[in-house]
Amino acid sequence: MKKWITLFLAAIFAATPAMAEKTIKWKLAMTWPSTLTPLASPPAKLAQMVSDMTDGNFIIKVDGKEKHKAALGILDMVKGGQYEMGHSASYYWKGKNITTTIFTTVPFGMTAAEQAAWLYYGGGMELMQELYDTFDVYAFPGGNTGVQMGGWFRKEITSLDDLNGLKMRIPGLAGEVFARLGVNVTNIPAGELYTSLDRGTIDALEWVGPGMDIRMGFHKIAPYYYTGWHEPASDMQFLINKRQFDRLPKSYQAALKVAIKAVSADMYAENYADSATAWAKMKEEYPDIKVKSFPPEVLAKMKEETDNVLNAYAEQDPFFKKVLTSQRQFMDKARAWTTISEFYYLQTSAEVRK
Amino acid sequence: MKKWITLFLAAIFAATPAMAEKTIKWKLAMTWPSTLTPLASPPAKLAQMVSDMTDGNFIIKVDGKEKHKAALGILDMVKGGQYEMGHSASYYWKGKNITTTIFTTVPFGMTAAEQAAWLYYGGGMELMQELYDTFDVYAFPGGNTGVQMGGWFRKEITSLDDLNGLKMRIPGLAGEVFARLGVNVTNIPAGELYTSLDRGTIDALEWVGPGMDIRMGFHKIAPYYYTGWHEPASDMQFLINKRQFDRLPKSYQAALKVAIKAVSADMYAENYADSATAWAKMKEEYPDIKVKSFPPEVLAKMKEETDNVLNAYAEQDPFFKKVLTSQRQFMDKARAWTTISEFYYLQTSAEVRK
Repeated sequence: MKKWITLFLAAIFAATPAMAEKTIKWKLAMTWPSTLTPLASPPAKLAQMVSDMTDGNFIIKVDGKEKHKAALGILDMVKGGQYEMGHSASYYWKGKNITTTIFTTVPFGMTAAEQAAWLYYGGGMELMQELYDTFDVYAFPGGNTGVQMGGWFRKEITSLDDLNGLKMRIPGLAGEVFARLGVNVTNIPAGELYTSLDRGTIDALEWVGPGMDIRMGFHKIAPYYYTGWHEPASDMQFLINKRQFDRLPKSYQAALKVAIKAVSADMYAENYADSATAWAKMKEEYPDIKVKSFPPEVLAKMKEETDNVLNAYAEQDPFFKKVLTSQRQFMDKARAWTTISEFYYLQTSAEVRK
Repeated sequence: MKKWITLFLAAIFAATPAMAEKTIKWKLAMTWPSTLTPLASPPAKLAQMVSDMTDGNFIIKVDGKEKHKAALGILDMVKGGQYEMGHSASYYWKGKNITTTIFTTVPFGMTAAEQAAWLYYGGGMELMQELYDTFDVYAFPGGNTGVQMGGWFRKEITSLDDLNGLKMRIPGLAGEVFARLGVNVTNIPAGELYTSLDRGTIDALEWVGPGMDIRMGFHKIAPYYYTGWHEPASDMQFLINKRQFDRLPKSYQAALKVAIKAVSADMYAENYADSATAWAKMKEEYPDIKVKSFPPEVLAKMKEETDNVLNAYAEQDPFFKKVLTSQRQFMDKARAWTTISEFYYLQTSAEVRK
């Protein structure tokens, strides 16, 4: 009878492990505080989807910046394995590898639709993975903000002279470009931006777009809202520790990848709706906000210096050059299509909507 | 010992059914032939994703039009249960309920980004479900073509007079609008379009955009390619039989919904890339193709008649009015945002790219 008991127990144990060994708990660290929607939305929604799709057997705990206190340490934590996953923006790793910057966005670069076409169907994701292979992590597009506004200015910019000596908070490649135009580029923590702008410590700043800007209140103290040029389609990324991903059951790997694609598209829609609503509200409450585009001579100089900055990095780094070339070539044909489709549609329908 | 054998066998059987009862086979019927990418892509990718996410336990067999021979019978077949799922475009059910049309697209309506924001974050999906509840099916956005081109014309349109008596293949609401402008609107099967245009049986036609148009060859025989006004963002839909969906395990329901969202976004990217590539190829091979926008007086009249057509349906049908009002209100604020973001970005960067 001992033998039967053994077989019986073996059968029971054989019955459960399939489920038991599939119960997996992961942690995800994101650069943003948990309340900072829409940037914080994709990880939260991803965790819910993955749990729902696996009957609660694959749990991803999402830690915001308020928890892990390392907003700009996401890549290191995922690489090191403290977190299996991360959600952040590639250009924060500029110090590790300059090419990371241009997987976020490029001044005068692709729009969100063009960039998605490049990433998914133009070789972009393969190039991004080639880069992130050097960190032993998998990288996936993780949501796009669309066009970011050029920023809030206390005074109108009518010429290149107006930029000379202007104190502005503007990070990244755009900061490098503005510095070449004589702007006094500074970086100030988010929490101090409103006061700095209000007191004139800075003359201008850029943040994101109406949906996120409205909570910062800049529109109350800086009446000129400039149209975008520097971050036409900022992409977020999900990063995943390779070792951890590779040892997941195949079905969980699939669930994770499908959910990543779903929540990435979703963030763009959420931000679009937020921005539309916030912009309507801003204009209603502050009808004196003036939307301006930079004058042609300023735009031309911005474009020239953008090319100079990008070409200089391309000279130094063959991989940067490879990615930049891929983007430029894809963008040439994608922009031709955007122009005859979306752009002319918006232009002609604006004429008849008047 | 008998008792132990019984228990042993019971334990073994208890171990397997959990998997066995979850093995589900569905069929999906789509309006398109299986080879007609990118329209046929979402169902094929969905089936692969769902299989991968369930270890091959949830199988969806995709039948193209060549199999079921009922391109415009998808809604009926899903409602009736012959197929658990379908993939089609809502405006094909105009004969059943006029409001179905405006869940596809509206002349002078929202762009793809605006429409996604409305559907997912502006109450659009809830309204769409309210409509499809009357057919006992669930409806989900299933991919968007973006701006469709205004069509191929053998002669330039310089005035309203040029439209008078023009023979054109253009279906749907746009056809109704063109008919009011004196166009002789006809419908001709896809397979006969090229010959009809070549022989002058028709003077013009609209199809989709470069990605799908290039295979039809219209650019070889009609040199004027007009920019879009009538289908700025045509949405596909996944339709699911309610009874079948409701009896799926919760995790399969979740997998299906997440995959639907992922493949919908993916179709837009695929079509964008296809169109960019096809447009570059067309221009290279046929440098004489002329991209034109309709003259202002024609556009103004199109807009006026579009409003007349839509308002007339709204008068007749309170639900049509409810959906149209929701779209118009959302579009007003979304277009204001699109204008200061994407539109000005495209406009200003075009100036410096020259």
